[in-house]
Amino acid sequence: MAPKCRPRYEVSKQPSSPDTVQDYKDARWATLVKTTYIDPDSTTRTWESAERLTRPAGSLIDGVGIVAILQHPSDPSAPPSILLQKQFRPPIDAVTIEVPAGLIDAGETAEQCALRELKEETGYVGTVVGEGFGVSPVMFNDPGFCNTNLHMVHVTVDLSKPENQNPKPELEDNEFIECFSVPLTDLYAACRRFEKEGFAIDARVGTFAEGIEVAKRWKLV
Amino acid sequence: MAPKCRPRYEVSKQPSSPDTVQDYKDARWATLVKTTYIDPDSTTRTWESAERLTRPAGSLIDGVGIVAILQHPSDPSAPPSILLQKQFRPPIDAVTIEVPAGLIDAGETAEQCALRELKEETGYVGTVVGEGFGVSPVMFNDPGFCNTNLHMVHVTVDLSKPENQNPKPELEDNEFIECFSVPLTDLYAACRRFEKEGFAIDARVGTFAEGIEVAKRWKLV
Repeated sequence: MAPKCRPRYEVSKQPSSPDTVQDYKDARWATLVKTTYIDPDSTTRTWESAERLTRPAGSLIDGVGIVAILQHPSDPSAPPSILLQKQFRPPIDAVTIEVPAGLIDAGETAEQCALRELKEETGYVGTVVGEGFGVSPVMFNDPGFCNTNLHMVHVTVDLSKPENQNPKPELEDNEFIECFSVPLTDLYAACRRFEKEGFAIDARVGTFAEGIEVAKRWKLV
Repeated sequence: MAPKCRPRYEVSKQPSSPDTVQDYKDARWATLVKTTYIDPDSTTRTWESAERLTRPAGSLIDGVGIVAILQHPSDPSAPPSILLQKQFRPPIDAVTIEVPAGLIDAGETAEQCALRELKEETGYVGTVVGEGFGVSPVMFNDPGFCNTNLHMVHVTVDLSKPENQNPKPELEDNEFIECFSVPLTDLYAACRRFEKEGFAIDARVGTFAEGIEVAKRWKLV
C-alpha cells in the first residue's frame, strides 16, 4: 500500500555548517525585521523576528501544507491513510517527517497550489475536500518568532483512478523526497517511532497526530 | 466556565513598523544562518534559515507548548475543554489564538517548564499526563525555514482543587494575555469563528484542531 515515489533518500554524511552567520545583504530567501509597537500600558517596545522573502506580492500566505488522504473505494474496509514525506531539512540538519507542502506562486489559489505541489512532489492527482473543510484558516507556524504561515489543504487521493496507478513525481534538482503513508489512526504512534529512529517531526504533522490521539482518548466522535 | 485570567487585551491601534530591516549586529533574540550541505547527487548547496538566540546551551529545544485540559471531576458530564490564550504577536501584527507556551530555562525539563509557564501565564496548577502521552516528540515549527522547536506537554487541570479556584497569573511587564477555554470537540469550529473575528490562528492549535476534526469525520475512535 505504501506509495512508491522515489528511491530511499540518503542523507549525506558530510557535515553541514549551520553556524555560518549570514551577512544580511547576501540573503535572498530570509530576513530579520524589527517591529515597534505600543503595548496596552502605552509602553513602546520592539520585537525581533524572521520573515521569508519569497511571499508573492498580494498573497496573504507563504504556502500550503497538504493533508492527503489515500482512499481505496474498492476496499472500504481499508483504513484511511495519510500521505507523508521524508525530506532532509538543512535548517535542522535532519530528515523530517512532514506533509507534502510548498510555497505559493503569484496569482495561485491555495487549492491550486496544493494540487500542483501534490502532483510535483508525490505524483498523485488529488481532489480538494468539500463541505468547508478543504482549506484551513491561515495558520502561523511560530508567531512569536516569525511571520511564516500557510493554509492546510485537505485532499483525497482515489487510488483506483488510472492516473494514480503509477505516480511519478516531478521533483526539482534540489528536491529529494521519499513518500510513504500511515493509517490515520496510527499516526501518533508512528511519530513516536520515527523520532526513535532519528527522524525529526514537523509540528504540523505532530500536533495533527496529537489531535487524533486526543479525540480517541476522550472519545470525541 | 471560562477562566478569568486578565482583563480583555486591547490591541494598540498605533501602527507597528514591521519593515524596519534589522542590522544583524544589533540582533539579540534572532539570527540568520547559512547552512552548506551536500545533496545525494553530490552537489554542494546552501540554505538560508533563521534561529532563536535564546536556546540554553545543552538544551535540544527552544520551549514548550501546553495542551491543558480543564477537568471538572464533580461534573463528569462536562465536556473536556482546552485552555487557550489571546496574545498580541508583533511578528504578525495580530492577536493570536494559541496554547500557553514559553521558552525553556537552562537546566529545566520540559515538564517543569510547562507547569511553570502554565502557572505564570494562566494561574492554574496542572498535572502532566502519564501513560507516555505527557511530553510529545520534539516538534519543529517550520523546518524548511527555521530551527525553532518545542515539546507539546499535555497537562490536566483539576478545577475542583483549592489552588485552581481563583487562578492568578504572574505575567511579565511585557506580557498581555487573555485566557479562555473551548470544548475540545468544538475546537475546529472555534478556530474558524476566531479567524472570521480577525484573530490569527497558531498552527499548533489549528492542526491539533484539524486532527480532532479528522478523527470525528473518519470515526477513528
